[in-house]
Amino acid sequence: MLLSIFEHLGIFVFAISGLLTASEKRLDYFGGMVIAFFTALGGGTVRDLLLNTEVRWMESSVLIFTALSGALVGIIFKQYLIKLRRTFFFFDTIGLGLFTILGIQKGIQFEQIPVTCLFLGLISATFGGVIRDVLCNEIPLIFRKEIYATAGIVGGLCYLGFRMIGWHNSASMIVCVFIIILIRILSVIYGWKMPILKKEDN
Amino acid sequence: MLLSIFEHLGIFVFAISGLLTASEKRLDYFGGMVIAFFTALGGGTVRDLLLNTEVRWMESSVLIFTALSGALVGIIFKQYLIKLRRTFFFFDTIGLGLFTILGIQKGIQFEQIPVTCLFLGLISATFGGVIRDVLCNEIPLIFRKEIYATAGIVGGLCYLGFRMIGWHNSASMIVCVFIIILIRILSVIYGWKMPILKKEDN
Amino acid sequence: MLLSIFEHLGIFVFAISGLLTASEKRLDYFGGMVIAFFTALGGGTVRDLLLNTEVRWMESSVLIFTALSGALVGIIFKQYLIKLRRTFFFFDTIGLGLFTILGIQKGIQFEQIPVTCLFLGLISATFGGVIRDVLCNEIPLIFRKEIYATAGIVGGLCYLGFRMIGWHNSASMIVCVFIIILIRILSVIYGWKMPILKKEDN
Repeated sequence: MLLSIFEHLGIFVFAISGLLTASEKRLDYFGGMVIAFFTALGGGTVRDLLLNTEVRWMESSVLIFTALSGALVGIIFKQYLIKLRRTFFFFDTIGLGLFTILGIQKGIQFEQIPVTCLFLGLISATFGGVIRDVLCNEIPLIFRKEIYATAGIVGGLCYLGFRMIGWHNSASMIVCVFIIILIRILSVIYGWKMPILKKEDN
Repeated sequence: MLLSIFEHLGIFVFAISGLLTASEKRLDYFGGMVIAFFTALGGGTVRDLLLNTEVRWMESSVLIFTALSGALVGIIFKQYLIKLRRTFFFFDTIGLGLFTILGIQKGIQFEQIPVTCLFLGLISATFGGVIRDVLCNEIPLIFRKEIYATAGIVGGLCYLGFRMIGWHNSASMIVCVFIIILIRILSVIYGWKMPILKKEDN
Repeated sequence: MLLSIFEHLGIFVFAISGLLTASEKRLDYFGGMVIAFFTALGGGTVRDLLLNTEVRWMESSVLIFTALSGALVGIIFKQYLIKLRRTFFFFDTIGLGLFTILGIQKGIQFEQIPVTCLFLGLISATFGGVIRDVLCNEIPLIFRKEIYATAGIVGGLCYLGFRMIGWHNSASMIVCVFIIILIRILSVIYGWKMPILKKEDN
């Protein structure tokens, strides 16, 4: 129940982030809605396509409604939302943690090998943002800034480890979502960054 | 029968539009052919992938032939085609109307919920152009200019409504394709546009 | 056996090429790994999605390991690899030839029509590079430079022809991979290029 609320909050916030990116590109309302929709639900779509299973939002008017509401709230409250950076960051980070672990669980459910499960988790959590940036004609943000997916990798590896040594699913999930959130928050506080591939002197 | 002719004309014209966009980017003949192909058949491809069913052009040498002919005609008659803007616009608009409704019908046939059917219709009609613009390194045109997908949304909603109140399929289809074409033509004549998300004063 | 070694070498080299492109864009280590991964395995992924079958790398930790090793080698030996252009070109060309024919074979195995088999071969061999360039915000290289996919088209058509007139699979395969490699090498030596769509005087 609580899980479902946080999942919808995550989708809602991802949709708003898509809308705000679109608005910086001077897109129109329709373009903004489309990009918000795919930012929110694109990661899960790619995961389900790879798993060769039914795409989750296609069967759920609630998920579609949540994503479109996020887009609508983004359109109406654009100016105010920009000031709420911290609230945003908070739910975006919960979304990252939650979608990573949910994606891994779906992989396990479909009997994928562990490394594929980890990739499916990362794809669930981050590919919405990748699609958003590709549609907005930018190099995806997660490829060049901050610790983001890396937090998901660490938390995801912990989750796979906990499950292998026989931990209970719910316990592993809660702990690992917190690990991801913690790494992400610490990385922003202390300015941790992935090293850049090309240095000036190359 | 008439339906099939118009469908192939739509694909043919979409392929030409892909070729002309590619030629503005100074791509080579091969790049032009690929982009023309995906502009013409990419929307249906994404629709079929989402429906987890066989991709339609893969089983139909006629569809492939139509798309490649459009590309070839585009290569040969580039200079003359640019003068035929009105003829183009006419068939592109028929394509928009037809593919939207055909996509919705395919969604209904696969027992999807109504909002998903509408999205499948829009994806069929517009994602070829989205893929074209992404491959040409542009922000998709339909996200930032004119009433295009919006005409499809209105017509698609009408179609879903007509079917719900029990109208016959063919009648609903013809009326709704005309609604889409009409909105699109009126929007061009009167210069209707979707509002832009970001205004100067923001 | 030899086939499998060359296939992994091809994937390895494709991963390195993805990493080097990413490093020119000043991405971070994570971005470089992701782009290397999709350069190496993205073509096969699109092929398998279109065939509505299980995505090959998802079931094979060896393929994933090969792609990630290529990325890692790329990160560590970046400076030295740039000097090995010829070795690279050699394995990239083997990859092109091999993946084209392997993709066609997979299409035949799934009972696709010949033209679709050819397209699946080309997609296997070239779409990794297309995804790499889209993620790096460039117009795909194969749409605008040199004879690359064209070599695959010629070799692929020969393969389909040889199979139709009853040649043995292995013989056809070896001959056609060599045809592709030969055309590619000759095109680089003699500077063959596809004509550009738009000329200055248009």
